[in-house]
Amino acid sequence: MTTTRVINLAGEISDFALNDRGLAYGDGVFETLLVHAGGPVWWSEHWQRLLHGAEVLKIPAPNEAIVRNACHALLEKHTDCILKIILTRGSGGRAYAAPHNPEPKIIISVHPAPTRIREPVTLRWCDTKLARQPLLAGIKHLNRLEQVMARNEWQDETIFDGLMCDTENKVVCSTSANLFVKIQGQWLTTVIDAAGIAGIARAWVLKQWPQAQEAHLSRFQIEQAEAIFICNAVRGILAVKRLGDAEFPADQDIRDLQSRLALEQPAFAMGESRGS
Amino acid sequence: MTTTRVINLAGEISDFALNDRGLAYGDGVFETLLVHAGGPVWWSEHWQRLLHGAEVLKIPAPNEAIVRNACHALLEKHTDCILKIILTRGSGGRAYAAPHNPEPKIIISVHPAPTRIREPVTLRWCDTKLARQPLLAGIKHLNRLEQVMARNEWQDETIFDGLMCDTENKVVCSTSANLFVKIQGQWLTTVIDAAGIAGIARAWVLKQWPQAQEAHLSRFQIEQAEAIFICNAVRGILAVKRLGDAEFPADQDIRDLQSRLALEQPAFAMGESRGS
Repeated sequence: MTTTRVINLAGEISDFALNDRGLAYGDGVFETLLVHAGGPVWWSEHWQRLLHGAEVLKIPAPNEAIVRNACHALLEKHTDCILKIILTRGSGGRAYAAPHNPEPKIIISVHPAPTRIREPVTLRWCDTKLARQPLLAGIKHLNRLEQVMARNEWQDETIFDGLMCDTENKVVCSTSANLFVKIQGQWLTTVIDAAGIAGIARAWVLKQWPQAQEAHLSRFQIEQAEAIFICNAVRGILAVKRLGDAEFPADQDIRDLQSRLALEQPAFAMGESRGS
Repeated sequence: MTTTRVINLAGEISDFALNDRGLAYGDGVFETLLVHAGGPVWWSEHWQRLLHGAEVLKIPAPNEAIVRNACHALLEKHTDCILKIILTRGSGGRAYAAPHNPEPKIIISVHPAPTRIREPVTLRWCDTKLARQPLLAGIKHLNRLEQVMARNEWQDETIFDGLMCDTENKVVCSTSANLFVKIQGQWLTTVIDAAGIAGIARAWVLKQWPQAQEAHLSRFQIEQAEAIFICNAVRGILAVKRLGDAEFPADQDIRDLQSRLALEQPAFAMGESRGS
């Protein structure tokens, strides 16, 4: 059963060359989509972010229909899974200099869906800081060593994820999700202008809650918050019960938001047991 | 003719899996060695830096003899070339979390040696800034998007390289080399504590010139310098004649240093024409 496919911009099956710039320099972007009942969740949003990342890196944009067809072919035998799409600049060029006529590669793969989490999760603070690089903030590029280092700070499996600050000690995100906090009744999320990824689920929440605001937040402010949740496009919305020594009660706003998400995207239904 | 080989830590020929973390996250390090008359130049120094990078990233260290043997097998038919060694954490783990028992991969490849440069070169300033990340400064990891973006700011082939500042406007390096400047008769090189790679050639120069110092340097200071050179392990020492609007005369210290390097490493002989 084929679980990985490499194609070129024309949609033709390709080899992955070991001098691909995705491997050499992380010269590319990726998306990780939840697939439910055979359909990728938030396809358009993921596709738009991938295109935006390609534009920032000046990688020629792939054609949506071609990539979507290739994904569907791979999903025929996998109705509930994770679909990962990597776009690299392909091979060539002289060292860092990109080739004049790049031949990007698209690597599509399916992976088991993670076990669904319904209970509030525990977080920790990471020591690893995110460097501030406004040119790359927001896009989901392949340079992810900071997240790898941060995630490998702990082994305790009861800790779901770790929050990261940037090198100016502004809170940014967890290693794999965006963050919302409720302070004096006001929902806030961190500004993604110097580090972190502008998440699909984050954008969905901001659309549902026009009153929520982006803000620069300190670790102290987060710890004093009345409620916290993290969100990403694979896990949906996860309430946080504990962050280091700070504890947070259940919050009706979060439950309401989870219900609204489940209505719109059944992949995130809280009651249903979702096998793969 | 085989020009690329993938091995595991035991030295066995391996496949490169498309879920390798080197591609997914840039989770690895690399070295680029000049090979002259069949011998890799500064092998020990490259090997030590690779080991140090692996230690920082907590990737199990490969065995030197195993990798060296694999390199020599590949170099049998390539006596003058570039040898690239990539070490990745291999496949596995759950997203950013590294696997408990990683199986690193080593990708060895040979590439044509670049045309030898004997004349002083022209540099420019890059707009792309380097993010400040002390945890990763100095090592030659696979997260190189900043260098790719910087190098792609210009197409003019008369410009050899571009100098980069970090986000605090401290000068760090060029996209592919370290920098030395002479100010009031004193040779200085930039501190590599928040960004940039601690170069092999840079270390060689510092060893030759105990009086040279590391310093935080501004763009203004560089432009006012009496002489400049850049250096890396593939190009050796390259005098700079022009940087943007600033011009620099030939400098006897640089010529002396180039001669000393050529004596110690014939690969860098200035007079000899080195074919591949």
